[in-house]
Parts: sequence; C-alpha cells; structure tokens
Amino acid sequence: MSQANVVIALDAMGGDHGPDVVLPAAAHALARHPRLHLVLVGDEARLAGRLPDRLSAAREAGRVRLVHAPEVVGMDEAPSHALRFKKQSSMRRAIDLVKAGEAAACVSAGNTGALMATARYVLKTLPGIDRPAIATFIPTMRGHTLMLDLGANIDSTAEHLFQFAVMGSVLVQAIDANRAPRVGLLNIGEEEIKGNDQVKEAARLLSDTSLNYIGFVEGDDIYQGTADVVVCDGFVGNVALKTSEGVAKMIAHFLREEFQRNPFTRLAGLVALPVIRALRRRVDPRRYNGASLLGLRGIVIKSHGGADALAYAHAIEEALQEVDNDVPNLIDHRLETLLTERQAV
Amino acid sequence: MSQANVVIALDAMGGDHGPDVVLPAAAHALARHPRLHLVLVGDEARLAGRLPDRLSAAREAGRVRLVHAPEVVGMDEAPSHALRFKKQSSMRRAIDLVKAGEAAACVSAGNTGALMATARYVLKTLPGIDRPAIATFIPTMRGHTLMLDLGANIDSTAEHLFQFAVMGSVLVQAIDANRAPRVGLLNIGEEEIKGNDQVKEAARLLSDTSLNYIGFVEGDDIYQGTADVVVCDGFVGNVALKTSEGVAKMIAHFLREEFQRNPFTRLAGLVALPVIRALRRRVDPRRYNGASLLGLRGIVIKSHGGADALAYAHAIEEALQEVDNDVPNLIDHRLETLLTERQAV
Repeated sequence: MSQANVVIALDAMGGDHGPDVVLPAAAHALARHPRLHLVLVGDEARLAGRLPDRLSAAREAGRVRLVHAPEVVGMDEAPSHALRFKKQSSMRRAIDLVKAGEAAACVSAGNTGALMATARYVLKTLPGIDRPAIATFIPTMRGHTLMLDLGANIDSTAEHLFQFAVMGSVLVQAIDANRAPRVGLLNIGEEEIKGNDQVKEAARLLSDTSLNYIGFVEGDDIYQGTADVVVCDGFVGNVALKTSEGVAKMIAHFLREEFQRNPFTRLAGLVALPVIRALRRRVDPRRYNGASLLGLRGIVIKSHGGADALAYAHAIEEALQEVDNDVPNLIDHRLETLLTERQAV
Repeated sequence: MSQANVVIALDAMGGDHGPDVVLPAAAHALARHPRLHLVLVGDEARLAGRLPDRLSAAREAGRVRLVHAPEVVGMDEAPSHALRFKKQSSMRRAIDLVKAGEAAACVSAGNTGALMATARYVLKTLPGIDRPAIATFIPTMRGHTLMLDLGANIDSTAEHLFQFAVMGSVLVQAIDANRAPRVGLLNIGEEEIKGNDQVKEAARLLSDTSLNYIGFVEGDDIYQGTADVVVCDGFVGNVALKTSEGVAKMIAHFLREEFQRNPFTRLAGLVALPVIRALRRRVDPRRYNGASLLGLRGIVIKSHGGADALAYAHAIEEALQEVDNDVPNLIDHRLETLLTERQAV
C-alpha cells in the first residue's frame, strides 16, 4: 500500500503567507516522495503565474494539478461565516476534493476554527465520534508524545475524553508502529479527590478497555515522555501547549540576553553556538508542525498559520503518513471493537 | 508599620525535609530581618536538640520560640483525614497561632490540600470570598506575573474567577507597589465564540469594575508579561504551571546532553558556564517559592514540599511582605468597594 501513488490537496491560499510558503513546501515534498501527487487549490491565475520551475515541471509530468478557488477564508473570519459564505474558498474546495475522493487528504494553514467547522460539515464525523479533536506530536525527553485535544472542544464530557483517547492511541499506533501506546489522562494532583468529575469518569471508562491506559499524568509528566498519548479537554490542552511555547521563548530570550551581556559572554556565545543550534533543532517546532483533525471521515491536517516552507512540508508528510496508514478507518474499527467490549462487560 | 516587630509561625515538620530545611531557612531569615520573630512549631524535643547556634542565640534573645506539636500531617494524607484526626499536628498548631493572634502569618511546606482545608476551617474565608485560591509569582520576560488559582479550586464559576481577580490585583498592588495591576483572564483563541461560559461571564463582570482588566490572555502571553495578574480555574492553572516546569526541565536536560556530546562541546560548556549559571538564576524556581493562600482571614504561605533552605527563606519573605502590607484587610476592603460599585451600576 505504501507503494501506491497518493494525492493530497493543499489549500494554497491559507495561512499568514499563502502561496509564498505552500509552493516551495510543495516542491520540497514532491522531491522527497516520488509517489506523491499534489492538488494546489487557490487563485489559479495567481498560482500558475508564480509556480517555481520544479512545480511547473511536476505539473507537466502530471504530478501537480491546479484547482481554481476564487475566495479565501480570512485568518480572523468567524467559522460560521466561512461555512456559510465562503463555499468557493480554497479551504472549502480542498476539503471538497477529499469528500469527492479526488484527494486522500488535505492540508491547510488557514483559520483553525473555520477548517474544523468546514471539515466537520463536509466530511462528517466517524460513527461513534461526537466531536473531532485536534492532535499534535510534541517533543519530550524520550522522543515525542501525541497530545489531544488542543482546542477544538471545550467542556468535554468523560465520553468525549474516552473518544479522544481511542483516536490518539490509534494514531500513535499507526505513525510510530507502537503496538500499545501508553495513554494518560491529564489531571492535577492537588485536590482532595483528585481531578474533576469528567476526568475521573473518563478514567473509569478507559480502565475497562483493552487500551494501554496508564492512569493520570500531571503537567510535568508531559515532557518526561511518561505517556505516548496525553488526553485532555481542549481548553486545558490549548493552554498547556501555548504556555509551553511561552516558556521556551522566554528561555531562548534570556539565553540570548545573557550571551549578549559583555565581550566575554559574546565570545562564549560563539564557542557555544553549535551546541545552542543542536538544542534548537531538538525542540524546533517546525519539526512538529502538522496537527491532525481526528475523528472525521477523511484526513485533514492543520499547518501552523505562520509556518515556513520547511514546517509546511512536515505537515504534508504527516498527511502522507496518515494516508498510508488509513487512519480514519483504523479509528473506526478500533472504536467499534472497544464499544463492543464495553457492552460485553 | 514596616518598623514593627512581626511574628511568623513556621510548620517546622512539614515538607519533604522538615526541620533540616526549616531551621537553616529560619536562621537565614532572622539574620536578614532584625524585626522578624519566629515561632517554630513541631516536636519540641527534636527541634530543641538540633537548633543551629544562630537559632539558639535568637531563642535566648527572645526572637525564637518553640511550640510543641506531637503530630505531623503526611504528604499524601487526605486533607479530610488531617482535618479530623491531626488536631495536634505542627501544621494545625501553626495555623491556630495565626487564628489566636499570636502570629501574624504562618508558613508550611506540608501537604497543600491539608493546608488549604485546615486553614479554611480554622481561619475562615473573608466576607464575600467563596473559595480561597492559591497564587504564586512566576518569572516573565519583563519581570514577574502573579498567577491564580493554581489548584485549590476546579470548576470555578465566573463569580469565583472575579474574586480571584480581585485578590490577585490587591496582592500585586501591595507587593509590587503597582497602583493598577493589569489583570488578564486566561483563555484560548481557537473557538468560534472564544472560551467557555465561565470565562466569558467573568470577563463581563470584570469589565464593569474599576479594576485594570485588560481582557483575555492566552498561554503564550503569560511569560511575555502581558498581564501582572493572570486569572484562571485551578485545574487550568495547575496544568499550566506544571507544564511550564516540565518544559524548563526538558530544555535544561537537552542543554546538558548537548554540552556532553564530545570534547569540543564539553569545552564549550566550560566557556559558557557563567552564562548558563546566569540564565539558571533568572528562572530559578527557588526565587519564586512561597505561594499565597488568598481569601482567608489570615496569612498562610505554602512553601514547595521539596524546597531547600534558600527557597524556604523566600517563602518566609513572602509572608513578611504580606504582613507588612496587611493583605487580608486590603482584599476585604477592595472587594467591598467593588461589590458596592457593581450594585450601583
């Protein structure tokens, strides 16, 4: 299966930089994966006029196709507005191609809320999934961990958290070839009876399954790599992820300031530069770009709005891996099995 | 007022290290603050037998008093158990001293849940405060920010978040001599109508007051120093704080690994050592040790369970500052004013 050609649709107008990032990323991904075909969705005249040579060549070779979409969803546009009034947007048409079976997945760096709302409306959720979730890999001391939900849902019930756990477990199983991903529920340790009602009830639901549920994890466990999948409500997950980015930025800022302090520290900075670069590579958020909208009847990957070409190419790779592993079907089957198990108990 | 003597009670048995940390921290604090008097609460024979010389001298000079408490609250003991069965614990007696007016504040490195439950039972909350909150300063790019709640409460209502905002604003006003601390509500930016109902309603309540409410802040704003006070539910705050610790530990771990990689990087590590040390000082969690249990009719400071003497001494300083500024009364007055304003609207 991994030998077959794969067609992925790219929302070429989405994100802060639109085609300026999507086109070079597309060229990079095509060069790396000979079986990859891309559909670039957007303002056709604009795209055709600025195709890099490598993309023009790929177009002639039949590996790149342009699909016209006259509208663009704004980064701050309300999702409901985009859904109602932007039916000819590059985002919508890229998702439509997945629905029509003309593309096996789509990637967009556009407005997250609009992408989720449109994908959910066009593709629908899998049977047994109430709400799709946003999932992303993050670096840890031991490798990486998948975290979900990251903001698609707030006020998640225990049943939602259970569904997130199943979806996350399947994705890690598929992408990391990890047969029994350790699933942890994000909780706090300070309360009399620890955690809130939803988390406690979700723990009960997960304990009764064949998932490799390892119990509660706390905020500081995430980066220790204690779990392969960290499950939480979207409000909590979004705050945790953005707070992490904030801390990393602050430390980088302080490090820069300390190395700039005087001639001696500037010299030390030069000597330490290869080490600092190696550190930066290890936590480079671009390597982790490409969040999955899980739980849909189709593969939709969200690239960070401000992603550069390297980061966007990673999002395309994530889409390719999910296509190769047929992630939506795996989720569907796994959920069905687990729910049958539950009824049998 | 700042010239008067101040008596602070220390739970000398609490925390992972008990007297091994509390006694040297006490000696350090007494040396720094000539008007400070301390009551060491715990196993009197054990404490008396291991007083460092400086504390023995201070005891003879009348600046240190021992109060016997035969019991200790365990670090994993259920708060309700501690409250019912440990009435002679060092933690309980330290709080009792505050209640009796024999100490102006108390500090404990013991079990957070038990400390909160006991303090709340013995001291009671201020009028108009439904639930006390745990607040701590954290480093930011521009200085520091007070964050609350950090785990005392989950499922906070809008009214609770409003009360946290008032308490946090008063504390920053008092400690930082900041006349109009910028108060932000922690929220996420991904949702259609951003955030959950509690946060949206709290925003409405705060907009109608004379507090310097600046609106929503996201996880990455915390460490930018965008707000002087960041208000959130205890579940979210606890996850954000622990996640931050996790990221900082991971970066430190990677930095160590990269500097150990080969002889050249080890040399670079030696050259960069002063810079790395300076960085570490700037984010040293010991400098931020001492969380306030706000909203009580008395001052209670929670030291980290694993704090060393330097960190514990910082918690004593936090207590002293809150005593000097009469924080509980300030909160009481401010809340009364704001609630009167609200009725007048």
